[in-house]
Amino acid sequence: MDSFHALLTLFQRHERFALSTHVNPDGDAIGSELALSIFLSKLGKTVRLFNTDPVPKKYQFLPYWENIENAQASVNFRPDVFVILDASSRERIGPFLNSRLVAKHAVVNIDHHITAETFGDYNIILTSVSSTSEIIYNFIKTTHIAIDEEIAICLYTGLMFDTGCFRYSNATSETHRIAADLIEIGDFAPDEVYSNVFEHIPLGKIHLLNQTLRTLKLTTDGKIATIFITQSMLDKTKTTLDDVEGFVNQIQAIESVQVAICVCELPDGNSKVSLRSQGQVDVAALASEFNGGGHERASGCRINRPYNDSIRMLVESAKHYIKD
Amino acid sequence: MDSFHALLTLFQRHERFALSTHVNPDGDAIGSELALSIFLSKLGKTVRLFNTDPVPKKYQFLPYWENIENAQASVNFRPDVFVILDASSRERIGPFLNSRLVAKHAVVNIDHHITAETFGDYNIILTSVSSTSEIIYNFIKTTHIAIDEEIAICLYTGLMFDTGCFRYSNATSETHRIAADLIEIGDFAPDEVYSNVFEHIPLGKIHLLNQTLRTLKLTTDGKIATIFITQSMLDKTKTTLDDVEGFVNQIQAIESVQVAICVCELPDGNSKVSLRSQGQVDVAALASEFNGGGHERASGCRINRPYNDSIRMLVESAKHYIKD
Repeated sequence: MDSFHALLTLFQRHERFALSTHVNPDGDAIGSELALSIFLSKLGKTVRLFNTDPVPKKYQFLPYWENIENAQASVNFRPDVFVILDASSRERIGPFLNSRLVAKHAVVNIDHHITAETFGDYNIILTSVSSTSEIIYNFIKTTHIAIDEEIAICLYTGLMFDTGCFRYSNATSETHRIAADLIEIGDFAPDEVYSNVFEHIPLGKIHLLNQTLRTLKLTTDGKIATIFITQSMLDKTKTTLDDVEGFVNQIQAIESVQVAICVCELPDGNSKVSLRSQGQVDVAALASEFNGGGHERASGCRINRPYNDSIRMLVESAKHYIKD
Repeated sequence: MDSFHALLTLFQRHERFALSTHVNPDGDAIGSELALSIFLSKLGKTVRLFNTDPVPKKYQFLPYWENIENAQASVNFRPDVFVILDASSRERIGPFLNSRLVAKHAVVNIDHHITAETFGDYNIILTSVSSTSEIIYNFIKTTHIAIDEEIAICLYTGLMFDTGCFRYSNATSETHRIAADLIEIGDFAPDEVYSNVFEHIPLGKIHLLNQTLRTLKLTTDGKIATIFITQSMLDKTKTTLDDVEGFVNQIQAIESVQVAICVCELPDGNSKVSLRSQGQVDVAALASEFNGGGHERASGCRINRPYNDSIRMLVESAKHYIKD
């Protein structure tokens, strides 16, 4: 691929690299970032990694994670090339890095999100692949550098994370073939990677889940399910809104449910909403009624109302989408 | 492979086939059974399927599931060959089929379990593969019959189910390559298969999960977690012991936990125990203290004591395995 060729040429021509990714980094962000840094080191380059947020504990099994420095550490570093991975927009790397880290020669933007902006001097945006890790895999395959054990575990982690362990619609046959390749190269147990990535849950999250399930309500036909999370529930369980991730999927899984609604009370008293469907209902259309968006089966919106008002409004609107 | 060749020869030589699998059939049981029946039909054979238990609603998206008859329907059918899939032992197909369905020529036993008994005239037992579906895939690949869309979705379902959606240690690179192949052949959406297989949960199970999470207790160091399920909780939520599946994984996922213990009260007042580990502790060794068994990370036992006594005994024993 031409853009991969141009990218390799750019990498070969320069010596000093900075890499970064989005705030609140996930498995694909960290996996693709570390994999590319290992690749560049093999080319003999000077590589430094700067992230706004620290590496979550669950990703501290990955090789060289401790090389990721905080944003402030970049203050006296002037890279030739600044590579930003998986970030969607330049702003999402955080304000300090965004304003203070300046590349002498070029900014490279590597991303797979459909919302990705072309903010780089080089933009490798491939929206048909599962993850930024899949792009890095395909890129390295076009070079003379071999994917080694260390690169393999980083890329497999990114692939696994962004496909929800091969269960989302972005897990294509190509994704599985890459996973097979990485498992063969890597000296890692895929079930242990799974355990690290998906089963490293703070105790408070379990207590929050328990509190949240107590709020479960279904419409009389069983087709609309709602749960809510209040600030007081977060306080009591010492959790944050990040810990709510995945809760809406638990009620989406109830066999009678066509629309699953999860409403979080924000600190300002307004509502953050997640919507899920098993396929009968297009919840992106439902979200758009509230100026939100997303996919047919997973969408969201914000409503400037308290959580109980929001639930009432959402259930009323959702009723129009229900199939018999 | 020789045994595959012998199996194909056997299939070609005979005309009337009966297929069955274990009681309480899961995705691999039904997936491999349906895939083989489609294959045999393509060879022009008469094929009938008899299961002791009905096809669970969540598998009723698979092609020809409605061809699976109940055990009693086999009463006047005398097959040349009786193929038993994924059953571990002859008895596990259920008493009626076990005693009343007699093959004129041969019984074929196809299985991947390490506990599989060699009860057949032909025994294709491969314990290094993920699933019986993976064996059927490999078998069909050695023949002149192509894997078509209908066979593909059945085998993918079996593969996905038995690997916990590619997250258990049996999901090898070979499993991923087969999944890739099946996705390419099949006219199905993997995320919809996932949704059918893993997200088709009765409402009562969510209520039971909620009740169960209220019983969560951790030792003061946070390293041993226990939950329990009583008969009265099952009654109240209109659920059965089958619905408890997966609960122990939720507490195993708590980041501090080395040993997760789930104790179910049986109808006779005794205890059925599931044990899980994130890898530091060998819970098979712990289970063996109570005459149970299993794997390092997942094991179980029965204790002839009430659930609260069992929890106390298990926690005391588990303490000796905890790592600092």
